[in-house]
Formats: sequence, structure tokens, C-alpha cells
Amino acid sequence: MARIKLGMVGGGNDAFIGGVHRIASRIDDRYELVAGALSSTPEKSRASGEALGLPRVYDDYKTMAIREARRKDGIDAVAIVTPNHVHYAAAREFLKRGIHVICDKSLTSTLSDAKKLVKAVEASDALFILTHNYTGYPMVRQAQAMVAAGDIGKIRVVQVEYPQDWLTRQEDFKQAEWRTDPARSGAGGSTGDIGTHAHNLARFITGLEVESLAADLDAFVPGRQVDDNGHVMLRFTGGAKGMLWCSQVAPGNENALRIRVYGDKGGIEWAQEDPNYLWFTPFGEPKRLITRNGAGAGDAAARLSRIPPGHPEGYLEGFANIYSEAAEAITAAQDGKSAAPEVVYPDIYDGLRGVEFVDACVRSSKRNGAWVTL
Amino acid sequence: MARIKLGMVGGGNDAFIGGVHRIASRIDDRYELVAGALSSTPEKSRASGEALGLPRVYDDYKTMAIREARRKDGIDAVAIVTPNHVHYAAAREFLKRGIHVICDKSLTSTLSDAKKLVKAVEASDALFILTHNYTGYPMVRQAQAMVAAGDIGKIRVVQVEYPQDWLTRQEDFKQAEWRTDPARSGAGGSTGDIGTHAHNLARFITGLEVESLAADLDAFVPGRQVDDNGHVMLRFTGGAKGMLWCSQVAPGNENALRIRVYGDKGGIEWAQEDPNYLWFTPFGEPKRLITRNGAGAGDAAARLSRIPPGHPEGYLEGFANIYSEAAEAITAAQDGKSAAPEVVYPDIYDGLRGVEFVDACVRSSKRNGAWVTL
Amino acid sequence: MARIKLGMVGGGNDAFIGGVHRIASRIDDRYELVAGALSSTPEKSRASGEALGLPRVYDDYKTMAIREARRKDGIDAVAIVTPNHVHYAAAREFLKRGIHVICDKSLTSTLSDAKKLVKAVEASDALFILTHNYTGYPMVRQAQAMVAAGDIGKIRVVQVEYPQDWLTRQEDFKQAEWRTDPARSGAGGSTGDIGTHAHNLARFITGLEVESLAADLDAFVPGRQVDDNGHVMLRFTGGAKGMLWCSQVAPGNENALRIRVYGDKGGIEWAQEDPNYLWFTPFGEPKRLITRNGAGAGDAAARLSRIPPGHPEGYLEGFANIYSEAAEAITAAQDGKSAAPEVVYPDIYDGLRGVEFVDACVRSSKRNGAWVTL
Amino acid sequence: MARIKLGMVGGGNDAFIGGVHRIASRIDDRYELVAGALSSTPEKSRASGEALGLPRVYDDYKTMAIREARRKDGIDAVAIVTPNHVHYAAAREFLKRGIHVICDKSLTSTLSDAKKLVKAVEASDALFILTHNYTGYPMVRQAQAMVAAGDIGKIRVVQVEYPQDWLTRQEDFKQAEWRTDPARSGAGGSTGDIGTHAHNLARFITGLEVESLAADLDAFVPGRQVDDNGHVMLRFTGGAKGMLWCSQVAPGNENALRIRVYGDKGGIEWAQEDPNYLWFTPFGEPKRLITRNGAGAGDAAARLSRIPPGHPEGYLEGFANIYSEAAEAITAAQDGKSAAPEVVYPDIYDGLRGVEFVDACVRSSKRNGAWVTL
Repeated sequence: MARIKLGMVGGGNDAFIGGVHRIASRIDDRYELVAGALSSTPEKSRASGEALGLPRVYDDYKTMAIREARRKDGIDAVAIVTPNHVHYAAAREFLKRGIHVICDKSLTSTLSDAKKLVKAVEASDALFILTHNYTGYPMVRQAQAMVAAGDIGKIRVVQVEYPQDWLTRQEDFKQAEWRTDPARSGAGGSTGDIGTHAHNLARFITGLEVESLAADLDAFVPGRQVDDNGHVMLRFTGGAKGMLWCSQVAPGNENALRIRVYGDKGGIEWAQEDPNYLWFTPFGEPKRLITRNGAGAGDAAARLSRIPPGHPEGYLEGFANIYSEAAEAITAAQDGKSAAPEVVYPDIYDGLRGVEFVDACVRSSKRNGAWVTL
Repeated sequence: MARIKLGMVGGGNDAFIGGVHRIASRIDDRYELVAGALSSTPEKSRASGEALGLPRVYDDYKTMAIREARRKDGIDAVAIVTPNHVHYAAAREFLKRGIHVICDKSLTSTLSDAKKLVKAVEASDALFILTHNYTGYPMVRQAQAMVAAGDIGKIRVVQVEYPQDWLTRQEDFKQAEWRTDPARSGAGGSTGDIGTHAHNLARFITGLEVESLAADLDAFVPGRQVDDNGHVMLRFTGGAKGMLWCSQVAPGNENALRIRVYGDKGGIEWAQEDPNYLWFTPFGEPKRLITRNGAGAGDAAARLSRIPPGHPEGYLEGFANIYSEAAEAITAAQDGKSAAPEVVYPDIYDGLRGVEFVDACVRSSKRNGAWVTL
Repeated sequence: MARIKLGMVGGGNDAFIGGVHRIASRIDDRYELVAGALSSTPEKSRASGEALGLPRVYDDYKTMAIREARRKDGIDAVAIVTPNHVHYAAAREFLKRGIHVICDKSLTSTLSDAKKLVKAVEASDALFILTHNYTGYPMVRQAQAMVAAGDIGKIRVVQVEYPQDWLTRQEDFKQAEWRTDPARSGAGGSTGDIGTHAHNLARFITGLEVESLAADLDAFVPGRQVDDNGHVMLRFTGGAKGMLWCSQVAPGNENALRIRVYGDKGGIEWAQEDPNYLWFTPFGEPKRLITRNGAGAGDAAARLSRIPPGHPEGYLEGFANIYSEAAEAITAAQDGKSAAPEVVYPDIYDGLRGVEFVDACVRSSKRNGAWVTL
Repeated sequence: MARIKLGMVGGGNDAFIGGVHRIASRIDDRYELVAGALSSTPEKSRASGEALGLPRVYDDYKTMAIREARRKDGIDAVAIVTPNHVHYAAAREFLKRGIHVICDKSLTSTLSDAKKLVKAVEASDALFILTHNYTGYPMVRQAQAMVAAGDIGKIRVVQVEYPQDWLTRQEDFKQAEWRTDPARSGAGGSTGDIGTHAHNLARFITGLEVESLAADLDAFVPGRQVDDNGHVMLRFTGGAKGMLWCSQVAPGNENALRIRVYGDKGGIEWAQEDPNYLWFTPFGEPKRLITRNGAGAGDAAARLSRIPPGHPEGYLEGFANIYSEAAEAITAAQDGKSAAPEVVYPDIYDGLRGVEFVDACVRSSKRNGAWVTL
């Protein structure tokens, strides 16, 4: 099976997430990184490209899109790993040339950009994959499958949270800088950066949409322009209720994304920092701890897992699963087919929902926590 | 040191909480149970009294109050462990006769009763102790002391929750019956029964009051007349924010009361089901697990603990600590003194705050989650 | 039901374990402490007795045994809570006068004393109860019942350990002093003080006896006269194998007694510091976490438990269960009956097995870890 | 930096460990797999090679060694991932032609093969790297660095264990088959397959060698020819003592490798199934939980880690770290240099120690657990 030729926009030397995408693309050997426009200046882009030994390095993404589209051996897909405000403009260039796009979240920094990007995707033959990576964890798939199978009954309550502590104080390093700048990150701070992950995870596992929400956002660190803590009450389609907490000022929390879902027959619980475990608590029975590929785990987890139970897989493997799902879909598309039904990845509409979520949080909080619809 | 002569109202044979109070009163040998009006009917009261070998059994609490007040060797204090709607009328009878009252929570079933009870306490020389028992756990005291000492800095975020699962389905056993009857329990279901514990614990540890809240309450089980799940956003004095979740329909949760408090210098975390542990997470340092009487634990925990670290104390010891604090206060009062400053117990105003909390939750939820002041 | 009149030998003011016995005897209201010879000197004994408000205080245990035996309202039972080397001589005085004995472990400081005590018990009508308290934990009973019911199949492997850290350095406080003095504690240090607990727990849960063992004992702290760390390999009746580790020099461990038992159908795991949980791991199924009185827990646990699931019981309640079992047996004996079959407590033979275990460890270690029979 | 050209011996389609090696070699992009002799028969080798899209597929490893050595663009290194009994003969072919060898453990199936392999390595200019992969976990490196820095003081006690449950019953699948065949796996069953991992981990973290041991091995499953459970007491250089348990018949355990080391100043604890955490327990201070790249973790962990704290890395990343260390060493060797001092990987002598460990366990067990020297 031929490897997919991949380009990359953003992800220069000092960017955290670019390296993650590159490793994720390598793990299952379905991609070959051959081109890049890795930084916002030609000089940095070239330096980063050389350091990575890339065959083709471009000064900017538009040049890359144009030239790669013309080559016979041009890239099949591009990974866009820039700050959010660049996503729309960059993605558009590749989509309109039929190059598949794998885009980091958040989808865009504004709702209007998000809507334009939806149109761009709908107008293109190319696929659009959003790396809401946490849905790539095998035990998240297991949870989703169990909920879909009715194992916990009709859903009543969803508790989801994503606390971190890295912005507890005013920071000036690069990762912190653009993520707290509304011009580049969007109107949401913690809501945009990690609240969207929590929101997407809840949607993915439950299969429910958030219809309305009430939010109380804060910027606790003096001078911060975007929220660093968000409290949100949720109302889902079908009557389920939820709470969502995101924070970047909760000392002792690294990436403590955690979800609990309760139905009228049982509950499930999953935590990102210990991702190989899933608690299943059928009402009236002892709690059960299901492990990745262990007893009680099923096909949904197994097809995205590489090794037997008891040997942990982590964040990079979960991220790689998004890439592998994308590879399945891209390969199928190249053959003029649809991917198999079990192939699932976050798409443009998941991205739109995320931006709508941030927009709704900000609107609600400005109106003193009034309920707003998404 | 002479033991305090104790009477009991409620707590007949089939009542859960009466037995808990009796054990709690025995553990530190400061009380002697000598009288009781243990049930709502004279027959049951007498049967229960005999089963317990009580010296003096009465048909009803009023008779008990009158007669015990007249005896030279009459009771010094009474424990009231009836359903909530009886608390006010029963407490009044003893308070006006100078008999100290140890009362189970919730304080009353209505806000108007609560306010009347405040007046009755203020008009009496007798003490009023409310058994918000969770504040008796040594590591809750430790948490309170650390917060007061500034170990976590200025508080920003409070996350508190109390999920249970015992009312996941429609139940008809006695414990469930009165607790889901608004006439006996009050307008709040889960908010009243366990939300008040969460609210009180947050107040106790942080030293902050909830100024306003926004609540979204549900009765998920068909036909249930009171809430069985409550989502509440909190705003505290001084600018801290919080979330409170209480539920009786969350399968897999027994009494999963848990609190996390985050300040600008660090965080703490405590869970009722594993009460001998306290996580302390100073920002920028490794997480520390402090154990009851272990390294890092201090006097506040030690004075309410009986055994060395590594041998767990539990719910009954925490409950006994409320009784022992009450004994300190009652003994001091008998000598015309105040108890030492470290003697702390939940009082009538804590009870009032709890009833106000329930009232505010119900009001907010009826107004579609609007923010209401307490 | 009349309370059992209890005396106490040892347990003066500064003794840890005496206070534990007194609380344990009170929790279920089956005993009344009425007499004591609480210390090794008459002065200290009297001072401690007064502090406790004991009706009758004696200068020494022999006087107490003689005089109480003569009284019509004399004690029914005595708790012996002295250092080990006193147990035999003290117990004998009460046994020969028909007074039931509740004795702290280890049974004696020498094997010859243990054998003489067996004879004294066999010659007496009185009962002898040894407070190997950990077998009083409800979930230990649950484990024992599950093993007996065949839930884990034929036992193959037993892993049991009891690490502590309080003797990591040379200490001079009282608790450390007698426990590291072979004349008072016995030839085993950690093996005697805590290894016996581990050994007894393994025997209790599995129903198997240790036939032979190979031990490698150390005294890591310079100048220490008894072992402070013991490594032991075990061979049980029926072919099961085991390992036992006891240590008082393992920093970070408080009372980390823990047992794991594996059979050909499944496994169980229990830890003293989190005693309300029991892991059950049937082969080929997800791990199950059974909680005290929760789903999956049975009668064996429930009959020794006072409160619903999710409210933890601890060390004192487990200790109280030994007292309550003893009360059942003593009451039955007073009526000339046997206790019901479910009434179980550690007896003189359990004590003998413990002393034999220590003796075997010391013998084996002296012979360079050769296998020795018990 | 040019990628190292890699060949593979073994690791055909249905082999678990071959896939692990291939992923591990890709994660950090330091290798390119270009040749293989992937199975014991030419047909299978070819089929597997085609499935992987390998440029050059050989019928057998000897042919591969000869031909690759002759090519200008021949492989720089070979990964040997066959069953143990093939390791020696295969490795020899590559070593004598100057091709670096990355070999799966156990080193060999016999001690005599191991010794011959030592000579082959010593006679060659090529490097020999053994994939005792668990030493590649960042927090194992952290533990090693802390012990070396004296953070726990002089080591007294080592507790290490590796229980599994996959051989609880008689199994006939391929992984089970060769691992329970002494001709292919060696005289040790669980001792060889996983006991060697536990032994190596203890050596790596403590820096101590096992001088002598006493072992009690069992084959609990009827008909099994090698041990499936091993109890071992250890004596280390310098006076430290240890216990080692390995089992493949412990239901509920997947790959529960866990180590605890105690010194006179503190302790550490690490578990493979939750590899991003390290407990550090300085005596007399609260327990600290150090996380990978989190507060308190140092350079030794960071240089083998790819992502920030809170995003777990797993087994494959730990395995990749061995490959990356090997890449550092191979690249340095190609330049005629030594690798930097911080570059560490398990080598031929670690492999020899492992085979000696198995041999000693078997010898001791046959002599009824007598102490034998390694």
C-alpha cells in the first residue's frame, strides 16, 4: 500500500504540535512527509525544513499549494498546524486544489471564518479532517460503542472537565502567548483551547448535541484578555443535562480531561491521563474496570490499538489513530470509494460545533450566564 | 469527667441515622444515652427504647422535654434525628427548657421554619449543634487549616460534588420514601439531602460564602416530586467561582462527596470515600499526598484523630468528632465558659445557610437558571 | 441484653493499643469497662484508672484476677494489652478463674510460653480471643467467603506484605522501645509485630496453613537486636505457594498490609489502608471493584458492618468486630451454648500458629534461609 | 541526519514483537527498514516482506547478512526478533560482518549460547543492543537518576514483581506455544520471559548486581514444561535484599511489572502499566507523585520524552527510546566516536546477566531453594 504524500503548514522547530503531528503520521507508516511551509517567515520555514530533511520546502503555504498541485508527485494531503487564525485561509488554498486537509483544532478563531470554511469544504472534492485527537483513544471508542449499544441506558447526566494549570501565572513563553491572544486564538481562551476538546468528547461519546448552555467565564490572571476558567451548564438534545469545566489555572492538573456519563442503566468514566482504562458501572452491579484490549473491551477499541493489554498506549497513539482513520478515508477517496463505516474522524462540522460552542460560551457569559442556544 | 446525659428524638429501630448518632456518641465516651422518644408513634417508640435498653422511654418528644427538664438527673442534651420537617418543632421544646440540641441536617424542611429556629436558638441559653458530619473528618480540618494559612493562596475556583446512585430507579423503601417527599424533606431532593453537604463543606474549607448561584435541577425518575440531580454554578464572596453537582441518579457512585479548591498558589483535593488522604498541589511542585496523622498533617487533624497514620478512620469517627466538639462546648457551657477556640462545630447559622441554599437552587431553577442571591 | 463487664490489664495513659481496645469495646455497646490494672507499677496503674474514671483500679493483674473472681458483680472478661512477654502469665491468672480473656497479639514472646498458654486455655472453661484485628474487617470476611465459595478456584499463589516505615531510623520512643527489645517482644522484630498479622491474614482468607517456609531476615538499622525487614517464601498445604514481606524500614509505608490471592479461576486483592474495597478478578472477565455493603458484597461482610456503602468504616470498626464476635461467643457461653457458626474470631491456636511462624522465620534465617517446617 | 538503514530477522505477519520493533524504529524517524528475513520459511518471509513493502526480502538471515554486507547501500543495523533460541546464531552472522545488532530479549535460550554471544560481540566492531525495553521509560530513567543522586540514601530493600495472567490455563496460540517450549524459550518459563525484565529493571534502577538468590519455581498448569510462577529472594552487592515475583498465572494482571526501592532516606515506586508516574517517598515527608516532564522530573526523563506532562506516553515510546539510544550510539560509531555519556542502552552484558539469572533460578529451585550465586 503506497504511503500518502503529506505536506505541512506550520510546525516549525519550536512548535509543540507540529512534532506531534509528524510522529502521529509516522506511527502506522501510512504517510510520507515530503513538503512544508513550516513557519510564518520564509527564513524560519527554510531552517525548519532543512532540520527535518524535507525534500521540498516553501516560503509560504500558498506557494506550496500552487506548486504541489502542479506536480505529478505532489502531496496528497496537507497538515495545517498553525495558530487558529490562519486555519481558514490556509485550508482554503489546498481544498480548492483538491488536496485533502488534516487541520489542527480549534477550527478557526472566529465563527465567520468557520462558516466560510464549511463552504470551502463543501465546495471541494477533498476531505477535511480535524484532529480532535482525544476521540482517537481506543477506550474513548469503547465508551462510544457501549453508549451506542445501550449499555448505560438513556443518558441523563454528562460531567466533563478539562483542567490544566500551566497558565496559573502570567506567562510569556510562545505556547502561552498566542493562546491568550484573542486575535490569534479566538474569543475563547480556556474555552477555545481545551473547552472545545471537552465539548467534542462529550458529543462523540454520547452521540448527543448541546442545544443550549449557560456559561460563567473568568480571566483570573490580571491582564489576561481571554478566559482562563469556564463554568458551563449544558442541555443536550433529548433532555440530558451536563456540566463542563475548563480551566488553565487549576494547580496540580496537567491535562486532566475527564468524562463521566450516566444513564438510567449505568455509567461510564474515562480520564485522558490514564487512557487505557474505562470504568463501567452498571446499576446494581460491582464497578468494572475495562482495560484496552483486555477482557470486556471490544472491536471498536481493538481496531485502533496496536499491542496487547497491559502495555499502555498513550497520547501519540491516540493522535496517530486520527491520522490512520484519515488515511483510510483518503485512500478510499483516491479509489473513488467511501471508507468503511467503522472509519470515523472529526470533520468540518465537528469543528463548526466547537467554534459555535466557544461563541455561545462568550455570549452567555456576557449576558450574565443566560441560557443561549448554539 | 462526667458523661453528658443524652436523650434522643427519632432514631427508632429501622432508622439508619439514629444508630449512627448513637455510635458516634459512644466512641469517645463523652455521652450516656438515658432517654428517648424514638418514633412517631408511642408503640414504636417504646419498642425501640426497650430494644436499646434505655432507662427512660417517652411517647413523644414534648413529654420527654417537659419531664426531663424537671428531673434533677434529666438529660443535658438531646439528639434530634427525625425527618427534617419535625426538626423545628422538636428542637424548640428542648431549647426553651435549656436543653442543648444536637440536630441532624437538613436544619428544617422550609426556610420559614429555619428562620423561626434561628430565633428559638438565639432566645435560648442552650447550644445548638448541627451534625453536618463531614466537617468532622480530620483531613477536612487539615484542608481548612491549610487554606486559612494561605497554602493555596487566594481562592479562585471551587469544584464540589456529591453524587450517589441509590435513587436511580423508583424506590419504595423507607429511606427513599421520606427523602423524596417534599412535605417531609423540603422543596429540595438531592439539593437538600446531599447538595447541602457539598455546600457546607465548600463553605467550611474555603471560609467563603456563596453570594449567588444559578441552578438547573431535574427530576429524572418519572413521578419524582423533588429534584434528583442538580447542576449549580456558584459565585463566592471575594470573587471566587464554583460548580456544585449533586445527584442521586449517577450509577456507580455511593457517597462520592469530593471537593477541589484552587488558589493562585496551589490546590487541594479531598474525597469522602477515601477520607484519610488529602492531595496538596502547590503550583510548580510535585503533587503531595498527605495522610491523616502522617508527615505534613498538622494539629487541626491530629486533635480529632485517635490512632496513628495508616490505620484508617472512617465515617463514624468523623461523626463522633462532631459529638466530641459538642461535648467540649456543652461542658464548657455547663461551667459558664466558652469552649476553646479550636473547638468548632456546625451551628444554627450553618443550618440556615443550608436551607437558604436549597431555597435559592429551587428559585433559580424555576426561573430557568437565572442567578439568584442567597 | 446486659453488657459484658470488662477488665483491662495494661493500656495505661501513654499506651496506644489500650485506647484502641477501649474504643473497640464501646462501639457496639456490648461491654462496660469496670476494672483495671493498667500499668506495670501501682502508681501508674492508679493514675491511669482515675483518668479513665474506672470504678475499680488494682495495683497488679494478679490482685485484680483474685478479687474480681470473688465479686458477684466481678468482670466477665479481661482485655490483656500489655507487651507480649506478659501475656502468658497474666492470661493464666484469669483463665484459671474462669474469666474470659481477650488478648492482644502477638500471643507470647516465646514459643514455650505459647505452648503453656495453649494448655492453660484448654484447661479452662473460659474463652480465649486473640485480637488479630485485621480479620475483623468486613471485606476480609467477604474475601474469605468468596475463596471458600470457590470464586477464585483452587489457590495457587498468595502474595502478602506488611510494610511500615516508622523504624527507618533508630528511635527511642516507647512504642519503638519494647517492640525492638527481644526480651519483651520476642525473637522476631518485624516478623513478630507485623509479619504475624500478614501470616494470619493469609491463613484466614485462604483457609490454608503454611507448612514450611524459607526466610531471610535483616536488621538494617545499626544496633537493632531484632529483624526490621523479613523476606519469606511460603509453602502451603495443598501445594499453593506464597511470598511474605514485612518491613519497618520502608519509607512511605504506614500500615500497608496487603494481600493478593490467585487461584485457577480468578484472584482477589485487599489492602488495609483502603479497607472498604475488594478487587475481584475472575479470569477472562473485567476486574470488579466490590465495596463494603455495595453491589456484589454479601452477608459475611454485612453482618460486621454498621452503615451503608460509600461511608467508610475503618480500623476501629474492624477491631470492634473482633470484640463483637467475642461478645457473641461470651454471651453464648454464659448461656451454656455455642455461638452461631458464623461467629468467628482468632483463637489460641491462631496465636500459637503466629508464634510458630516467628520461630520458624528465625530458625530458617539462622540456617541461611533453609526451608523449615512449622 | 541520514536515517540508519535497518534490516529485520523474524517479525513476520503474525508475530507480536516484530510490529512493536517496527513502530519503535519509526517513532523518532532515525531508521528506515529496507530489508528482512522475516520468518523461518522462505515462503512466509517473502509474504511478510511483501505485505510490509520491504525493498529487499531474503529467504533466511544468513543470506541476508552476506548480501547486505556486500552492498554499498546495505543495512547498517539489524533487528533480531525471533524466538530466543535463534538469537545467537543469527546475531553472529551480522556481528562478524560489522553490522550492528538490535536484539530482542531474552538474549539466548541457553547460558552457553549467551557466553558464546558475548565473545562474538567482543570480537566485533559492531554494537549490540538488547531491547530490555522497560529501561526506556522516562520515569525509569528518572528513578535511576534519583537513586544515583542519593535521594533515597543507601539501598536496603528492593521489591520487584512482574505478574501476568495470560497463561492461567493451557493455551495453544502461537505466542504461548514457543514461550512454554524449553527448546525455544530456554529453561525458564515465567522467569525467562518476564522475570528477566524484573531482574534487569531492578539492576538498572539500583545500580546493584544480584549476587545470589534462592528460588521456588512452579509449573501450576498441568503438563507445562517450564515454570509459570517464580518466587525468588535476592541478595545484592552491598548488602541490600530483595524479593522478585514473576507469574503468568495471576488472574487480573496484564503486564503488572512494578518496582519499589527503599533506602535509609526514602523510597521510590514505579509501575509499568501507569508509566508516567513515579512515587517518591522521602522519609518523614509527604509522599510525592512526580509526573513525566512535570514538576520534580528532571533531564534524565526529559531527554527521552516527546510531549509535555499530562499527555501520557506509553510502551511504544519507551521501546522507541531504546531504538533512539541505539541510533545515537550507532551514529557516533559510524563517525568513529563514542556516544555521549547520557546515552544508555541494555547491552550484551545485561543480556548475559539475564540468562545467568534464569539459570540461577532453575538451579536453586532444583536444589529446593538453596542460595546460589550468579
